[in-house]
Amino acid sequence: MKLNLLAHSFRPFIKHFAISRGFSSVSTSASVAKWEGGVSMVQGASRGIGLEFVKQLLETNGEGYVVATCRYPKGATGLMELKNKFAERLDIQRLDLTDDSTMEEAANAVRNKYGSLNLLINASGILSIPDVLHPETTLSKVQRSSLLLAYEVNAVGPILVTKHMWPLLKAGGGSGTERDVAVVANLSARVGSIGDNRLGGWHSYRSSKAALNQLTKTTSVEFARKKDPVICLLLHPGTVDTDLSRPFQKNVPEDKLFSKEFSVQKLLSIIHKAKSSDNGKFFAWDGSEIPW
Amino acid sequence: MKLNLLAHSFRPFIKHFAISRGFSSVSTSASVAKWEGGVSMVQGASRGIGLEFVKQLLETNGEGYVVATCRYPKGATGLMELKNKFAERLDIQRLDLTDDSTMEEAANAVRNKYGSLNLLINASGILSIPDVLHPETTLSKVQRSSLLLAYEVNAVGPILVTKHMWPLLKAGGGSGTERDVAVVANLSARVGSIGDNRLGGWHSYRSSKAALNQLTKTTSVEFARKKDPVICLLLHPGTVDTDLSRPFQKNVPEDKLFSKEFSVQKLLSIIHKAKSSDNGKFFAWDGSEIPW
Ligand SMILES: NC(=O)c1ccc[n+]([C@@H]2O[C@H](COP(=O)([O-])OP(=O)(O)OC[C@H]3O[C@@H](n4cnc5c(N)ncnc54)[C@H](OP(=O)(O)O)[C@@H]3O)[C@@H](O)[C@H]2O)c1
Ligand SMILES: NC(=O)c1ccc[n+]([C@@H]2O[C@H](COP(=O)([O-])OP(=O)(O)OC[C@H]3O[C@@H](n4cnc5c(N)ncnc54)[C@H](OP(=O)(O)O)[C@@H]3O)[C@@H](O)[C@H]2O)c1
Repeated sequence: MKLNLLAHSFRPFIKHFAISRGFSSVSTSASVAKWEGGVSMVQGASRGIGLEFVKQLLETNGEGYVVATCRYPKGATGLMELKNKFAERLDIQRLDLTDDSTMEEAANAVRNKYGSLNLLINASGILSIPDVLHPETTLSKVQRSSLLLAYEVNAVGPILVTKHMWPLLKAGGGSGTERDVAVVANLSARVGSIGDNRLGGWHSYRSSKAALNQLTKTTSVEFARKKDPVICLLLHPGTVDTDLSRPFQKNVPEDKLFSKEFSVQKLLSIIHKAKSSDNGKFFAWDGSEIPW
Repeated sequence: MKLNLLAHSFRPFIKHFAISRGFSSVSTSASVAKWEGGVSMVQGASRGIGLEFVKQLLETNGEGYVVATCRYPKGATGLMELKNKFAERLDIQRLDLTDDSTMEEAANAVRNKYGSLNLLINASGILSIPDVLHPETTLSKVQRSSLLLAYEVNAVGPILVTKHMWPLLKAGGGSGTERDVAVVANLSARVGSIGDNRLGGWHSYRSSKAALNQLTKTTSVEFARKKDPVICLLLHPGTVDTDLSRPFQKNVPEDKLFSKEFSVQKLLSIIHKAKSSDNGKFFAWDGSEIPW
């Protein structure tokens, strides 16, 4: 099976649209190719919340296109199943957050096939990795290598992906969607909130998510200043039953442990109705704002 | 000249004190050696705000001891001048934030000579380094290497120093000072505030300082939970005339550019009167709280 379909030039529904609604025209000219139903990229889509985003985006919008990225396309069995079902509407593209060249390749592939993006969801993230990364229970256990690893994957990675996809998002704006704007949705976490930090611990993860929040906020300021038709959101999915939360679920009351399906449904409703005034905000799954 | 005097056993004013004021006893037993006037460590003391902290700590407290750490003791001419003047009251110790072993050595040296610390000021920091680190003016210029470097020096470094000095700070508490508690004062920056971020840019620096804020807050929660006689503060010094701010001073109104002397005087008054209820807070030079 050929996993990377981005090089193909399958363009059934190309339209043109005039950039309107007060956004400045972007360098790609005042009209760009439009994909009916929009083009979304889900980064970190091999499993967990990212895979569920891909599934719901494809299922709920019969005309939308999805570019799913992951580190190891050949091992991404969940994505392959979706590929079998959704065929041309799903592209699977390799992207490793620790390798800039894979980001460039992914951006080039989207540029060549679609020329634009309307949504980028950074759904990747690490909290614990056996024998490598352990959420710290005390300052005494904090280590340089853990702090740097979590920062590189959880904060640096998503912001560099945003940098690489920015021209495509500017070109896409909200065209083909129900929104006025393209959206960058970065998966953060309530434990990344400094103001809400009452329990301590998990230094590497907390620090990386606070940093992601700051980088996303910084990016949102530039998007607004340049009047780009793009906004950034930070999203907390709740505690969701995935590989990431599994080792820590025993203290979570049953009604506070969400299914992927429920959480992603809630997050997609926030994304779909997002508007310029939401730019740079940090929302929980239920739409409430989380303090920095 | 012998720069590292920490190995010497110059102990003129040893006292004993019973741990009181409701703090839990620490593992080093219920009484520890006390240094009249207290023992302070200033990390990042070769120049700028750190050097000025060393100077004022020595000048304003005739009985206090100061351990000044820097990357290159032999090149730290400002510290050498102070050493000539303050002799036994100043120790100069090598500490490089990118090298854990220098932190261990510094902690061992303090343990052997003093057995305790009452104050740790992390005054180091990087914003720009010619040909290496440039504060970003746009997302398009954000690079992995800059993000990682700023994070390692500005966030990881201070928190690992805090980890290594923690047992000494627990042993010291407020003894020999006007406070009830030992203080960890981490130099942050207003631009590290996510809530206050209205201009954007400076991604690497902003992100590293937001991360430092989160790591310090996380640490403060543990200190409080364990009832350690130690608190953490985050301090914004204002815009201060040092090497760090020099390339960016042209847009700063004259009355908003502080001298090192003025800023450090203000910050020391916050540190000296700090109490348990200040633990984990982020203060500007004038004592006002900065949002996260
Ligand atoms: N689950 C929760 O309760 C919860 C709560 C709050 C926030 N979040 C956040 O929600 C997001 C999704 O979490 P999840 O629960 O779905 O986690 P998950 O099931 O563990 O999935 C994590 C994903 O990140 C990918 N990833 C890890 N390192 C990567 C790298 N270097 N390059 C590219 N991709 C990489 C993984 O790919 P591989 O398959 O290749 O490893 C996987 O697709 C994360 O940002 C997480 O912090 C989750
Ligand atoms: N100046 C301002 O306007 C301003 C405003 C807001 C916040 N701040 C913060 O205040 C603090 C002090 O800034 P400053 O103005 O005094 O800066 P500075 O004059 O540039 O001094 C920076 C200090 O950090 C040290 N340092 C850099 N890398 C290090 C490393 N790897 N290991 C150990 N030490 C290292 C430097 O040592 P070397 O001499 O060896 O390079 C120097 O002592 C910083 O945290 C800064 O972010 C300053």
